[in-house]
Amino acid sequence: MARDPRWPRVWENYGEDCLVNSIMGSFAVRGFQGDDPNNIPADRIATSVKHYMGYSMARTGKDRTPAYIPISELREKCFAPFKECVEAGALTIMVNSGSINGVPVHANYDLLTQWLKEDLKWDGMLVTDWADINNLYTREHIAADKKEAIQIAINAGIDMAMEPYDLNFCTLLKELVQEGKVPMSRIDDAVRRVLRLKFRLGLFDRPNTQSADYPLFGGREHAEVALRTAEESQILLKNKDNILPLASGKKILVTGPNANSMRCLNGGWSYTWQGHLADRFAGKYNTIYEALCHKFGSGNVSLEQGVTYKPEGSYTEENEPEIEKAVEAARNVDVIIACIGENSYCETPGNLSDLAISANQRELVKALATTGKPIILILNEGRPRIISDIEPLAKGIINILLPGNYGGDALANIIAGDVNPSAKMPYTYPRNQAELTTYDYRVSEEMDKMEGVYDYDAVVSVQWPFGFGLSYTSFEYHNFRVNATSFTADDELHFSVDVTNRGARAGKEAVMLFSRDLVASLTPENRRLRAFDKVELQPGETKTVTLSIKGSDLAFVGADGKWVLEKGDFRMQSGNQTLNMTCSQTKKWMTPNR
Amino acid sequence: MARDPRWPRVWENYGEDCLVNSIMGSFAVRGFQGDDPNNIPADRIATSVKHYMGYSMARTGKDRTPAYIPISELREKCFAPFKECVEAGALTIMVNSGSINGVPVHANYDLLTQWLKEDLKWDGMLVTDWADINNLYTREHIAADKKEAIQIAINAGIDMAMEPYDLNFCTLLKELVQEGKVPMSRIDDAVRRVLRLKFRLGLFDRPNTQSADYPLFGGREHAEVALRTAEESQILLKNKDNILPLASGKKILVTGPNANSMRCLNGGWSYTWQGHLADRFAGKYNTIYEALCHKFGSGNVSLEQGVTYKPEGSYTEENEPEIEKAVEAARNVDVIIACIGENSYCETPGNLSDLAISANQRELVKALATTGKPIILILNEGRPRIISDIEPLAKGIINILLPGNYGGDALANIIAGDVNPSAKMPYTYPRNQAELTTYDYRVSEEMDKMEGVYDYDAVVSVQWPFGFGLSYTSFEYHNFRVNATSFTADDELHFSVDVTNRGARAGKEAVMLFSRDLVASLTPENRRLRAFDKVELQPGETKTVTLSIKGSDLAFVGADGKWVLEKGDFRMQSGNQTLNMTCSQTKKWMTPNR
Repeated sequence: MARDPRWPRVWENYGEDCLVNSIMGSFAVRGFQGDDPNNIPADRIATSVKHYMGYSMARTGKDRTPAYIPISELREKCFAPFKECVEAGALTIMVNSGSINGVPVHANYDLLTQWLKEDLKWDGMLVTDWADINNLYTREHIAADKKEAIQIAINAGIDMAMEPYDLNFCTLLKELVQEGKVPMSRIDDAVRRVLRLKFRLGLFDRPNTQSADYPLFGGREHAEVALRTAEESQILLKNKDNILPLASGKKILVTGPNANSMRCLNGGWSYTWQGHLADRFAGKYNTIYEALCHKFGSGNVSLEQGVTYKPEGSYTEENEPEIEKAVEAARNVDVIIACIGENSYCETPGNLSDLAISANQRELVKALATTGKPIILILNEGRPRIISDIEPLAKGIINILLPGNYGGDALANIIAGDVNPSAKMPYTYPRNQAELTTYDYRVSEEMDKMEGVYDYDAVVSVQWPFGFGLSYTSFEYHNFRVNATSFTADDELHFSVDVTNRGARAGKEAVMLFSRDLVASLTPENRRLRAFDKVELQPGETKTVTLSIKGSDLAFVGADGKWVLEKGDFRMQSGNQTLNMTCSQTKKWMTPNR
Repeated sequence: MARDPRWPRVWENYGEDCLVNSIMGSFAVRGFQGDDPNNIPADRIATSVKHYMGYSMARTGKDRTPAYIPISELREKCFAPFKECVEAGALTIMVNSGSINGVPVHANYDLLTQWLKEDLKWDGMLVTDWADINNLYTREHIAADKKEAIQIAINAGIDMAMEPYDLNFCTLLKELVQEGKVPMSRIDDAVRRVLRLKFRLGLFDRPNTQSADYPLFGGREHAEVALRTAEESQILLKNKDNILPLASGKKILVTGPNANSMRCLNGGWSYTWQGHLADRFAGKYNTIYEALCHKFGSGNVSLEQGVTYKPEGSYTEENEPEIEKAVEAARNVDVIIACIGENSYCETPGNLSDLAISANQRELVKALATTGKPIILILNEGRPRIISDIEPLAKGIINILLPGNYGGDALANIIAGDVNPSAKMPYTYPRNQAELTTYDYRVSEEMDKMEGVYDYDAVVSVQWPFGFGLSYTSFEYHNFRVNATSFTADDELHFSVDVTNRGARAGKEAVMLFSRDLVASLTPENRRLRAFDKVELQPGETKTVTLSIKGSDLAFVGADGKWVLEKGDFRMQSGNQTLNMTCSQTKKWMTPNR
């Protein structure tokens, strides 16, 4: 869950919201494993849901560095996707390498054993990340030596150690058991969890992986899904004067460091760890430039990058820019498609010290803008790099995230209007470096102007909010309603809203249901996403979208770490529609989970 | 305590460290009140220690917005200065307007009543900040209306409400008592605390303030202290090629928006709330430019600001720059003194969205650097505005903070070499926007390069660390020793180090004692300041500085919120000297405080 935009692993999950991560994550588990976690078919694999938990919330945003998270946020938001994945049958979970409130998660008995194994009665396997038992003494300094580190981690609940290089782990653990420092029952439990996983995977019947078991792998059906996924996840953020879609026959300059790179489309963990060899292995797929050539005709599309990344070294390194060449090339075209963002990275090498997009890239866009030619910015990046100084220079902006091998084709389909964009922002896109926030901030983050002598206010200013995304058509929301305006925890609440396509094109709309608790014992949050669905509408068509939740879904975790649904008013919102409803009875859960 | 450099109130306290805030804060209490809190003399006043607590740690750095702080940090660091001030006799405490972990502090019974009044047996008075009971329903939304807000705050422990405009507070509180929602005993307790304060202040004997009671006010003695304080708090951060002190007779250009402003020297809360009228009221004192004219002769000093602030509107507003005029003026001088920083502000109007110093000011320094003339940067700012792109262009840098009416004179004395600078940084000066940290980060914030396949590291990069500060002379540390290398909680530890002035000028050195816990049950911190003292040394002179602490001073607060001193090794450091020592026995406190 990507709570901090600086984090180098933002792109490896489903954005900043815990409900989106819960739903997408648990569907991913079912996709990987199938529907019966006790019998994983030969064409499926076990999942490792990772990294448990709070990984994205480091105070400095850097990979694996210390996070400070109050118990209420841990329980309510960080834990939610893991709980949902466990309930979907996830067979293994990998542990966060960092610390929360000073305690390395690999050493946290409460989070590993109590919350996961005991509270959820989860019988799966907990695995460390790379060398993370060693890290308890080499990096976290909570153990004096390797043996103490093993003792702490195994007793906290680790079932399998990812020990990269040294076999003495086994010797030391055996000594710890013989000395009574690790109970034999803990070893038995861990071994049972490892063996249970192998039985569930059928490894005693099918010990070897056979490529014949995966007949769809790399085939046409998967390719179609990959293309469709890319099309539905690229977000149209700006479309001034309906610059998009582009009519055929336009002369197009494709520019920027991300214009002609499979590496950039794929990001890290693709072909190699840092993703740096993707262009060697994925040459048969289309870069943005290649896809646009296919779509608009090579004669109409030219390439002059202006800024390029260095193929080796840190992902931040760029070659000496040739901005004037790009500006020159821009003079002969109708429109500029500037593909900017990040080169591929992953994990700690992707740390950053400045969230603004690179100075060269900003200079490139500013120089291109002097030509007066309309600019369409393509953002191809693993996290939201700040572009507030160049955003006003663009007429159109599409955030394609890291769309994979079919991302160039998907983008070309969107630019040409063959596909109507329908994605929404999975995270808040920040406007300024010093005020990073998520959409679900507490209401006191924003202050209205006070009346009187001390007349101050405070504003939350973002580039684009969570849930934002445009279409080539327009949707009207009306007739927002609910089956009951007064409710208790056990009630089923069915919200309906009529959505009409008022434009001239067919399009898809992600309909979202937000709540706001108007008064609560903790300062309430601005908004929380409670349900969503996506519908397709022909021009002029109206559909009624129904989103259902339980009253208890509006509960939150209080300062004492306990779930509570408080009596009082809520404002619900979908599109531009709002309605108020009232919880008539407070319910407090004395159980760890709702 | 200024834990976040973005916070607009960084300048209103003693920096980022809890020990410095404890010592300086408690001495300030004694200065304001005298030594007997039960009898405040006519020439003293009661203190209001503020704002209790965690105020600086808002997630977005903005004034009065939500903070998220683990219990261990709250108890160990945030509470420490307040505890020390209470023990020094502080008679009133003002409450933080924001929330911690979702709970507005004005509503937090544990922090207000349990921690302060019961645990410390403090019999002083707790006062709200401006309108902060109202804010519980208008801004924090934890109460449905004003009456409920009053109920929550008074029951949490508020003794006096700063209700700015509306007398119905009294009517509503009376109703709450009559309805049994606020116990009469709480009212009695609050009234006793208010009356006790008045008795201690002697208000029943001396109900009116008489200016004759303050014979020193505005006099020569105070002026001398103000000048000396400014001289001892201006920090020399860079002195390449010993550009400083400047020889007399040099031709000097004084430039930059802070060059000729009493408003900038004073900052907010001076003469007016936002400090914007200081030049009207403090005209008889010297701006930087005026002080340099007096020191170096008007004929040698010229003023061309290049960038100026607007006198009205937001503190961030600048007039159209005239950089070329400053560059032109620079051609005729020997040295450029560029006075940059911030205009005055305070509280919420001082919020920022970008921590870099203004673009105009950076452009000014870059343009001046093209002349090849040596540049001395004077940083006159309430918090550390990032200057990493212009720092390399300066030969000398002095951070004068907000030095008050004698700040210009103090700076002139330092620049001329009449005073040898001796201050140390009270906070970490950040280098980059996206990696803000304090000096006492946990060790896992920084990672050595891992060996093997996944070869990553992470670094903490700052412009200047906490405790950094240069002198015109140089000090050598040697013979660092301690009376016992093995200790328990109750032992007195006396550290001594010999400090020699190796330069040709007399100078003062702040000698600091740092500790590092080598292994602990929470990931240990990089360093913690444990004691400090300041000594003056003539050229060639050596003094032995002894700094004493108790073994229990090396305890920390664990994840359970309890103080603990853990058996094991510590590395102590003073200057470039280190020694290791061992705690031989774990001690855990079952009391809230050590």
